[in-house]
Parts: sequence; C-alpha cells; structure tokens
Amino acid sequence: MKPPGSLRIVGIGPGKDAWITPEASSLVSTATDLVGYAPYLERLPLKSGQRRHQTGNGAELERSRHALRLAADGRHVALVSGGDPGVFAMAAAVFETIDDGEPSWRSIDIVVSPGISAMQAAAARVGAPLGHDFCAISLSDNLKPWSIIEKRLMLAAEADFVIVLFNPASAARPRRIYEAFAVLRAIKQASTPIVFAHAVGRQNERISIETLASADPGCAGMSTLIIIGSSETRIVPRGVGTPFVYSSRGSKAL
Amino acid sequence: MKPPGSLRIVGIGPGKDAWITPEASSLVSTATDLVGYAPYLERLPLKSGQRRHQTGNGAELERSRHALRLAADGRHVALVSGGDPGVFAMAAAVFETIDDGEPSWRSIDIVVSPGISAMQAAAARVGAPLGHDFCAISLSDNLKPWSIIEKRLMLAAEADFVIVLFNPASAARPRRIYEAFAVLRAIKQASTPIVFAHAVGRQNERISIETLASADPGCAGMSTLIIIGSSETRIVPRGVGTPFVYSSRGSKAL
Repeated sequence: MKPPGSLRIVGIGPGKDAWITPEASSLVSTATDLVGYAPYLERLPLKSGQRRHQTGNGAELERSRHALRLAADGRHVALVSGGDPGVFAMAAAVFETIDDGEPSWRSIDIVVSPGISAMQAAAARVGAPLGHDFCAISLSDNLKPWSIIEKRLMLAAEADFVIVLFNPASAARPRRIYEAFAVLRAIKQASTPIVFAHAVGRQNERISIETLASADPGCAGMSTLIIIGSSETRIVPRGVGTPFVYSSRGSKAL
Repeated sequence: MKPPGSLRIVGIGPGKDAWITPEASSLVSTATDLVGYAPYLERLPLKSGQRRHQTGNGAELERSRHALRLAADGRHVALVSGGDPGVFAMAAAVFETIDDGEPSWRSIDIVVSPGISAMQAAAARVGAPLGHDFCAISLSDNLKPWSIIEKRLMLAAEADFVIVLFNPASAARPRRIYEAFAVLRAIKQASTPIVFAHAVGRQNERISIETLASADPGCAGMSTLIIIGSSETRIVPRGVGTPFVYSSRGSKAL
C-alpha cells in the first residue's frame, strides 16, 4: 500500500507577497505538487523537484478533481488559491467535489489555510468600511439564478448591511452590475459611500471613492471589488491624500 | 517642528503565529511604540528600545486616542489588533476617533494592515462554510439597539445567507444568544448546519458541529464565533475525524 498523501488548500492573498502568511509559505514550500491557476503559481518561488500543475481560470471542479486524485495517489499537494480559499475561491469547490466524488476522497488528510481576502485588503486601503455588520455577495449568475442575487441585494439593503460585491462584472454579463445598482439605488440613500477597488495589492491597483449617486457601475471589471456603505458609513476628508472611509461601529434604529 | 510620526493599525490574526503576515511582523518590529490590549501585545517578541502601551479590553476609543496622540507627537506607532483590524476590531474605532477629534489627526500618515479574521480561521478548520454569499453580524448591543440586530438576523435568514455571529454572548447579556436562535429557528430549517468555534487558533481551541435543532446556544461564550449555514450548507461525514462542512457555491431559487 502506498503511503497516504495530503491536500492543503492554501490562500496566498490578493497580490502582495507581504500578505502571504508564514503558514501558506511553508505549505507551498513542502508540497510535492502545486496545483492552481497559472497567475497564482507564477507568484510562488520555483523549487527543484516540485511539480506544477497549471490550470486555466474557471474549471474549479476539474482543478479540484485533479488535486484530489494526486493526493489519493500519495502526493503532497498544495492547491493554491488567490485571496482566502474559503471566500468565493477554491475551498468550497474542493469539498463539493469530495461530496459528489469517490468515497475514498473523504479519508484524505485535508487542511485549509486561510488567506487575506481581496475584501479585507480593499477595506484596509481606504480605512475601515467593514467596521460594522456586513455581507458579501457574488454577482456571478453562473451557479445561481439572478433572481436570488436581486433578492439578496434587496434584503441586504433593507438590513442596512455594508455590502461587498464580488465578481461584479464580466464580458458575459456586462449589464448585471447596472441592474444591481438599480436595486440598491431604490433603497439606499444617494449619499451612501462606495469604494471601487481594482486589482488590489497588484501593480495596477486603482481605488476610487464615490457615492451611490455619483458612481458609474460601468467602471467595474473582472478584477474589481465594490464596497457599498451602510447608513453609518462616512467619508472623512483629509488635507492631503484620498479621504478615509469607515463604518461607525454603532447604529441607530432602522 | 517635530518630524512627523505615523500610525499603523496592524492585525495579528486569531492566535496562531503562523497566521501573522510578514507585513504585520515588519510593521510591529519597526514601530517605536506598540499600543494594544495586553494579551495581543504579549504574543509579540520584545524589542529593546520599543515602548509598550498596554490597555484593557473594551475602551477602544481611549486606546485610539492614545495611539493618535503618540503619532501626532512624532512617534511611529503600531496599534495591534487581534484578527483583522477591519472586521469588528480596532480600525473603525480609530477612524471614528479621527472623525470626532483634532483636525490635525486627519493628516497623520495612517496605514491599515489586514489580518486573518477569526471568521476565516474558524471556516478553514471545518472546510468551507463561507463558500457562498454570507454576512457577519455582531450580537453586541453596546453600540446598537437589539431591535436592529433582530431585524438583521431576520432579513439575513430570509436572504439565505450563511450567517457569522461575532460576540455571541457575554456576562452582561447571557440571554441574547437565545433570542437570536429563536429568530433563526423560526425561519431556517432544523437541519441547518452550525459551527461553534471557541478560541480558534489558540491552545484551548474547541470546534463543534451541530444543527440548528441540536445546538445549545448556551455553550457560546466571549471567545466563541458561530457560523450558521444557508440552505446550501452541507455536512460531509468522514470515515475518521470530524466531518467537513461546506456551502455549495450554487443556489436554487429561493
């Protein structure tokens, strides 16, 4: 019998090496095999003897199956995910694959190693917009009907959550972000602060601070994350530099 | 004129050193002054010449003012926060203090350094329960009326979010957690998976997996974080070891 392998689902954060935890670095360095989307693997140092299995974007279930088969075959696999693997990233796909897959996969030694998510990095760049009850919603309707997304946006706005939008726009659905803003504009105040964070932590990072009235939803792309304030979110102007954005920890009655 | 100081609001994650990012370690090591709640400062290596300003728990605004005064006085301050400073931690308190405080504080050089939050660490321990749209709600009614918290719980359950509860119970409000569960039990299915994560990342970490029907809200304390599944959250039993918990990335219509 082969000695058992292992699978580590590792988050390397959103783009900046100084945000990769020591746990993630160590798991990547001791793996026999790295599996992941090519741009994530390219961020990691090459190590002799270590095998790399690069896959395209999307195809999460195929990537999960590949990682699980390698681990079942006795390899020590690090499945590399951007951000936090548990937040709109690879971890859920792996457990879904296990749930639907070979019974023996349930016995694989698996650990998830958390990472800084783009949401946290974007918030940190401007201040503390998540300092208050918040929710995170993916606008992708690949795996859920748009009607659920609209309903969630409506209920989240009524609950006065700070709302983080992941995957706000793609070439396949350029208009959905306009529909989402229409839902929010019908419920939330025009002065609500909004943060557009593009490519956070990467060289082409670009952050802009708007209000619900002034924001152009069309400026969101594949690498954009949007934070929509609650009624307790404030913009603090500064003498020099971009303003701070934070959400007050308290709330008045709704 | 004094050379200008700086303030770094640094997250050191939930208890485990391997989750402290290199950025956080570097900011802590180069600061002239560390400010923070004593148990967080005790986790950091002593450095000669560096001053430590330990404060009690609570008192976030006083701690923020102290850090801002030091930075305004030319010191290079690291304000140390557990978890992610932007998620129910110190960053919002600092910006609130600036908003209400000395105009000169707005010119201080401030950077927030994100950290792994307890929510992410707890999720990683069991699988991927946040793999789907989710929200985070603090049950503390120190700064907001209980009626808002109840309304948010109700709307979050109707939206079928995965719900993360921070600060579920304290000596001052031992019954609120029962009221919260009553709200959730009225809306969500009895079989909904629930994760209780106590002291995650610390030596006395204890994680248990329940359902909404079986869970005893009374076992939550000050250091507990609770993750309540959506209709798409599943428990995957294993041959040996605790089951996995994950939320499927897709959803059917509500």
